[in-house]
Amino acid sequence: MPDAGMPVVGMVGAGQLARMTQQAAIGLGVDLRVLAGGTGESAARVISDVRVGDYRDLDDLRDFAKGCAVVTFDHEHVPTGHIAALAADGIAVRPGAEALVHAQDKAVMRERLTAVGAPCPPWRRVATEAEVREFGDEHGWPVVLKAIRGGYDGRGVWICDDPAEAAEVLGGGVALMAEAYVPFERELAVLVARSPHGQGVSYPVVETVQRDGICVEVLAPAPGLDPEHAAEAQRVGLKIANELGVTGLLAVEMFQTKTGMLVNELAMRPHNSGHWTIEGARTSQFEQHLRAVLDLPLGSPSMTAPVVVMANVLGGDDPDLFARYEHVMAHDPGVKVHFYGKEVRPGRKIGHVTALGDDLASVRERARHAAVYLSEGIYT
Amino acid sequence: MPDAGMPVVGMVGAGQLARMTQQAAIGLGVDLRVLAGGTGESAARVISDVRVGDYRDLDDLRDFAKGCAVVTFDHEHVPTGHIAALAADGIAVRPGAEALVHAQDKAVMRERLTAVGAPCPPWRRVATEAEVREFGDEHGWPVVLKAIRGGYDGRGVWICDDPAEAAEVLGGGVALMAEAYVPFERELAVLVARSPHGQGVSYPVVETVQRDGICVEVLAPAPGLDPEHAAEAQRVGLKIANELGVTGLLAVEMFQTKTGMLVNELAMRPHNSGHWTIEGARTSQFEQHLRAVLDLPLGSPSMTAPVVVMANVLGGDDPDLFARYEHVMAHDPGVKVHFYGKEVRPGRKIGHVTALGDDLASVRERARHAAVYLSEGIYT
Repeated sequence: MPDAGMPVVGMVGAGQLARMTQQAAIGLGVDLRVLAGGTGESAARVISDVRVGDYRDLDDLRDFAKGCAVVTFDHEHVPTGHIAALAADGIAVRPGAEALVHAQDKAVMRERLTAVGAPCPPWRRVATEAEVREFGDEHGWPVVLKAIRGGYDGRGVWICDDPAEAAEVLGGGVALMAEAYVPFERELAVLVARSPHGQGVSYPVVETVQRDGICVEVLAPAPGLDPEHAAEAQRVGLKIANELGVTGLLAVEMFQTKTGMLVNELAMRPHNSGHWTIEGARTSQFEQHLRAVLDLPLGSPSMTAPVVVMANVLGGDDPDLFARYEHVMAHDPGVKVHFYGKEVRPGRKIGHVTALGDDLASVRERARHAAVYLSEGIYT
Repeated sequence: MPDAGMPVVGMVGAGQLARMTQQAAIGLGVDLRVLAGGTGESAARVISDVRVGDYRDLDDLRDFAKGCAVVTFDHEHVPTGHIAALAADGIAVRPGAEALVHAQDKAVMRERLTAVGAPCPPWRRVATEAEVREFGDEHGWPVVLKAIRGGYDGRGVWICDDPAEAAEVLGGGVALMAEAYVPFERELAVLVARSPHGQGVSYPVVETVQRDGICVEVLAPAPGLDPEHAAEAQRVGLKIANELGVTGLLAVEMFQTKTGMLVNELAMRPHNSGHWTIEGARTSQFEQHLRAVLDLPLGSPSMTAPVVVMANVLGGDDPDLFARYEHVMAHDPGVKVHFYGKEVRPGRKIGHVTALGDDLASVRERARHAAVYLSEGIYT
């Protein structure tokens, strides 16, 4: 143990989520260690205690975990069995394998959510064209096919208009499930935290705006959301966290439809839909995750401004991002710029901006302007 | 240059100011390098690019500066001549030697402030008991003797009731100046930033509460300060920054007296009186310092809550600080805890807490309770 009794938190993965967790760890005085694929990764560039290894290798995970008070994750790709093996070694892994599997395996997630009464779209496991056809005939076309494991940011999701399209996806050889296509009005997300003690808190429900399966904008709180629906979404989030035994953060992505809300996806880590909390909430999601996995009392999720908008910055054609800081900062002294220290490639999430204020239209416009300019260098 | 055109900022010193600057650097995607005395220092524990060396050694400074877009400081102890030598090498050093000398040499500071019309207490350089006696006879006793160079946190300041006490201090062999003892009502501080372009911003004026020469509490904004006096203090801060050619932050510590405000001390770096800005202002002083030394447009200094109180956490007898987090966080989910990753020693500044809200008395009480509990483990 370092001085002052401060624990070492091990985070598997060294992407931007671990990088932003380091900002919170520095504040709390907690030592953050990451397991990186290489020293050039986003979080590895800003953390002293970087271990290079393979998260698919149990020996690497065991070496990494030595001396950590708790092990947690910046992604869901660690094999469930390895997580269970670490726990069997006596290591505190949060979330644990029994919870995390619901963020790794969409079919297990759907089974469990159905069992606990969380609202989901109709779904079934499918392996043949006949099964998809039968599902589509019952629930309508298009049918959404999803890879049961491994998808993210729109990858591993196919919207099939007819059995022929489904057959093509089935030919890809990955385990699939079918879901009814949900004609949603908009997408919402609720972020909750739960500690091993069982304490839970929920952030305000947000609206997420996706483009090509990638989150591009988050509006906090979700504009015009009926307070009863907001409270219901928070109850669903806290209930899922509790029923699944989540420790740490749980992000619940939802569809808002004419007839109510349906759970779309789960993530058990800091989440893109919660980046706004860095400036927009009294406790950022990154600090909250650390507090939860360390079983510390959770922090206040209350907002620091009436309206907060986060816009992702995607890489454009010109990699010289720093040259574009000048305009963005001069144009708006209140906008907050975040860059993840990643190589700039077209379409890649390389950062985000956050704007705060009283009026949704103007706050949203400020965030949009900054994000577009940082991406493209175009004044819009 | 790393990817995306991001510059390397070199900060000489690796204390808590550099440590908290790293949180801001991570956000901006700027690479922070520190010159540390050892790898166990506060900032060295949370930064990848740590160079170990001696800030009094010009060769070490030159090696350190290679590849940095700009060099700045977390303390004022680098010899002025070395800073000038780096600049002569073509290195951007901010603040430069001609500005920084005013934060290093109290006599030079007083001469210059007097010349530019900033309000100061009566003062003179003194070398003999006769000179101190003459000064005291003119301006009254007690007389404040100050080491012209090297003092901080109450060190290097002696309040002498009579010539005999002054004689004892004079015997210590350091260069001294005498100042009239100011019967102040309270202490204020104004923090401003200035960029090489000449852009300046000022944070709201705060009240600082000192105990034994160490800042223990900062109240933002200064309670009950007349708006005209607040504006005047901000004008004085911006004027000093401009007249002295400061680049980066300038903290101006002031005495509020019955007849007006007097400048006490200057610092040209992030400052204890500005720690409240991490959560309490739209742009933290650490981000502001980076923006200023990089000649980026400055960020908004506006407050995120009507009242913000910062209380320093001093080391107590029990080093196990982490064990005391649980009570503090459970007692108040909104209080923000900062620990500097330093060895806990009695009386040492090891961290701070910040509370935000609407009502001064309750916000101040929340910060006080948390700081006392973290220091002493006593519920008060």
